[in-house]
Amino acid sequence: MDKRRETYDVDVGGVKIGSSHPIRIQSMTNTQTEDSIKTASQIKELYDSGSELVRITVNNEESAKSVIKIKDILVKSNYNVPLIGDFHYNGHTLLTNHPETASILDKYRVNPGNVGSSDNKNFSEIIEIAKNNNKAIRIGGNWGSLNKTYLERTVVDGKKSEDYEDIIKNALIESVLKSAEFAEGLGLSSDKIILSCKVSSVSQLVDVYTDIAKKCKYPLHLGLTEAGMGDEAMVSSVAALAILINQGIGDTIRVSLTPDQMGVRTKEVEVCKNILSSLNLKQFKPKVVSCPGCGRTSSSYFIELTKDINKHIENNMIRWKSNYKNVENINIAVMGCIVNGPGESKHANIGISLPGTNESPSAPVYVDGEKVTTLRGDAIKDDFLGIIENYIDKNYEKIN
Amino acid sequence: MDKRRETYDVDVGGVKIGSSHPIRIQSMTNTQTEDSIKTASQIKELYDSGSELVRITVNNEESAKSVIKIKDILVKSNYNVPLIGDFHYNGHTLLTNHPETASILDKYRVNPGNVGSSDNKNFSEIIEIAKNNNKAIRIGGNWGSLNKTYLERTVVDGKKSEDYEDIIKNALIESVLKSAEFAEGLGLSSDKIILSCKVSSVSQLVDVYTDIAKKCKYPLHLGLTEAGMGDEAMVSSVAALAILINQGIGDTIRVSLTPDQMGVRTKEVEVCKNILSSLNLKQFKPKVVSCPGCGRTSSSYFIELTKDINKHIENNMIRWKSNYKNVENINIAVMGCIVNGPGESKHANIGISLPGTNESPSAPVYVDGEKVTTLRGDAIKDDFLGIIENYIDKNYEKIN
Repeated sequence: MDKRRETYDVDVGGVKIGSSHPIRIQSMTNTQTEDSIKTASQIKELYDSGSELVRITVNNEESAKSVIKIKDILVKSNYNVPLIGDFHYNGHTLLTNHPETASILDKYRVNPGNVGSSDNKNFSEIIEIAKNNNKAIRIGGNWGSLNKTYLERTVVDGKKSEDYEDIIKNALIESVLKSAEFAEGLGLSSDKIILSCKVSSVSQLVDVYTDIAKKCKYPLHLGLTEAGMGDEAMVSSVAALAILINQGIGDTIRVSLTPDQMGVRTKEVEVCKNILSSLNLKQFKPKVVSCPGCGRTSSSYFIELTKDINKHIENNMIRWKSNYKNVENINIAVMGCIVNGPGESKHANIGISLPGTNESPSAPVYVDGEKVTTLRGDAIKDDFLGIIENYIDKNYEKIN
Repeated sequence: MDKRRETYDVDVGGVKIGSSHPIRIQSMTNTQTEDSIKTASQIKELYDSGSELVRITVNNEESAKSVIKIKDILVKSNYNVPLIGDFHYNGHTLLTNHPETASILDKYRVNPGNVGSSDNKNFSEIIEIAKNNNKAIRIGGNWGSLNKTYLERTVVDGKKSEDYEDIIKNALIESVLKSAEFAEGLGLSSDKIILSCKVSSVSQLVDVYTDIAKKCKYPLHLGLTEAGMGDEAMVSSVAALAILINQGIGDTIRVSLTPDQMGVRTKEVEVCKNILSSLNLKQFKPKVVSCPGCGRTSSSYFIELTKDINKHIENNMIRWKSNYKNVENINIAVMGCIVNGPGESKHANIGISLPGTNESPSAPVYVDGEKVTTLRGDAIKDDFLGIIENYIDKNYEKIN
């Protein structure tokens, strides 16, 4: 992995975003912000699932007022999660009319494509409010809301130019960099600015971010916009983010998935966690390595055992985490035959190599590379879960 | 994306693997190879879902004999899919005792970690058979089955060495490169050799492949071994493969997922397709860009419409593909509010921008960047599907 690209560090309500800090996970609610109870409850859910910051849309007077109630509910339930307000078109008006909201929100997301007015009056108002409240802003460009002036350049003689993608890319980058320069000109400190340039194609996102990464020292908010639904969307988001993070680019991430139903939102946080964990940047729960099975695996037992172990981890993780320091770093292997079974099991903290077709019906267990026992028969599952519990108790420092 | 790393081109039963050709998708059966009917049927299923080559384990006399029946079933049902035999320990014996099997298989996968005998007698036998049958081999190293001699180096004074990971990496690379050199020494042509070095950690896989890519011109078989189960496994596989493919590395890919149940196998092919499609290397079906929704999206209607469109594509893809050339390249956008809705819709071939909260209850539709109509009311879905059908009929060349 390349060295993390060097950036300023931006403090967003106590969570620091930038290259001296871990990549931060964020997400966005899909409740109506006016509904403070539902929104606060979704924010808690997102935070509990691992979202270190949460963004909410602030699109009208009611939602701007609701931010105050939402914060109140969160504070009363001891949720100290930084809130980001998502503004489009009328951000300057809402922030001006609702000073308490402006002081509660920890970051304002401003879209240079629709902040309005060519003389930057609206944008200046937002920057003044950010300055007075000591808040960070994200200047968030999106190719779906590029300023008209920029878009017109992509059309030549009424048709899309051949360099359409290049023009869009450069326009996106130019628009956020110019807005940042303008904000600094108004006196906003450089460590109060985060940038994003979102597009919905993986290769373009990689292009855009590789380019803007070289042109500034602001932390970058990374995400594939409008990725779509289902596995395709997940794969595209992971591909884009993994490529960029591996190049040291990206300081806070969001995965934008169309959910299966409204109100369900934590999946995007899970994907973020899986990305960071797959790249060894942070482990959130024990890793379970297991083989795909093939014609050598004699039964579906290794599948059942893998499921049981995953379920056991899910059921016990909260207890483990409150009792043992760093317990999430344990690695477990469940293998289905002799070919890679003992080898992969030895690489894990705890591994079991189940017998394949025509192999002796016994399952050697390895702990930290050493064979410690051989399991047989109906008790394999319970015995193996017992070995995991013992290992944790013996090897991880207890939290009092 | 970096330029594809230059390699030899290897012909595997008519499917060419190497840098002058697209990245090939492959998969592996998990039926007992002895069961020729079940195995042939799973091979068909994998091929139909997009696996351009299929690997089967050949682990004993019965499975070696069964390959003949499997091929027979495939030929009779017009399935011309290259078959790869996966050999461990006894490959030399099985290929010697079953010359018809040796001539049917299009590639032999040989594992240098367990091919046996220090004087390379077993390996030489396999190479001779490959030469005589004009077959390709994959020399497939896996850190779960590294040769003992290599593994011993990782242990110093009875403990894992501190450079454990580096030693494993170098041992894996050295073992496959030495085996390839040895095979060429026996007269196997360099364009008959494919290499792989599989490990189960993303960062190590990226390291290993980045390194071996520089050290040879053989095509590389790319995959994260024993990735595990569920979304975590998918995310790790995608992260690893996307990073490497983006660097121009990888000529054939496999995604190793522990399935939810035995007999179900096409998911790994779907993930491969999603990876190639996300990186714009090949599109298999229309892309549906859709927004994640937020507090601005007034209802769950955009979710339902996205689902309906995905379902419509699924139900009609076979018909479309048999009637229209390149129809899989169409891009559709379903957006939930005014912010990025019209913009993203304009970028797609066909896009619809549904109204968000307090927006006018109408949905403009864009075709190739131009607004063509505005839909309203209950008929939106049917009208929009109709527009898609019309667009396809008008814009894609008909196949007779």
